[in-house]
Amino acid sequence: MKALLLIAHGSRRAESNAEIAALTGRLAQLAEGRVEIVEHAFLELAEPSIPDGIERCIARGADEVRVLPYFLARGTHVAEDIPGIVDAKRAERPEIDIVVTDYLGTAEELPGLLLAIATEG
Amino acid sequence: MKALLLIAHGSRRAESNAEIAALTGRLAQLAEGRVEIVEHAFLELAEPSIPDGIERCIARGADEVRVLPYFLARGTHVAEDIPGIVDAKRAERPEIDIVVTDYLGTAEELPGLLLAIATEG
Repeated sequence: MKALLLIAHGSRRAESNAEIAALTGRLAQLAEGRVEIVEHAFLELAEPSIPDGIERCIARGADEVRVLPYFLARGTHVAEDIPGIVDAKRAERPEIDIVVTDYLGTAEELPGLLLAIATEG
Repeated sequence: MKALLLIAHGSRRAESNAEIAALTGRLAQLAEGRVEIVEHAFLELAEPSIPDGIERCIARGADEVRVLPYFLARGTHVAEDIPGIVDAKRAERPEIDIVVTDYLGTAEELPGLLLAIATEG
């Protein structure tokens, strides 16, 4: 079974972390029939951690986990921190196919989405 | 003339700020015929500042500036800092229609975009 694990930075503000949980819920609905398991995790400041998020996916039956950085820029978090944490978990769980996908900021649809916000929002 | 001013957080890493400039270029191309002026600015750590970004739009002929926070969560930056800076500039420039739009994280298209990254990226 395939899992999508959305990784947000994490915040000291509970409302910000709750936004991520709500987004994950919408994502799970949309993914129905395509990706069986959708979870979220935080790089820092909030729970679950990335290793715990991967374990949640595995506990729900995932043999493939696609880790998606919900980040806009390719800073140290995207370039080093997230891949490093995922590498460590992969070494612990060689039977599971764990992949880090592109981060949100790479999406070609972003300019269109921004223009829609600017002209409507 | 209408202007769109994209507001990013700003980073100590020049590459991250350059990503924003590149995105603004793509946005300007896409906006052609709909929004005449597209600029970017940074909340902190990089130039131009938000007041300078608004002034650039005005110098290019804008009488309406739509300030779009390129942020994923409604943290203090989105809830207080950006509106506060924009309010101060609005008081200085009452003849210009300056509006803060929704921030990126509110976009209804985000789950679809994330699912596309997860299944392709």
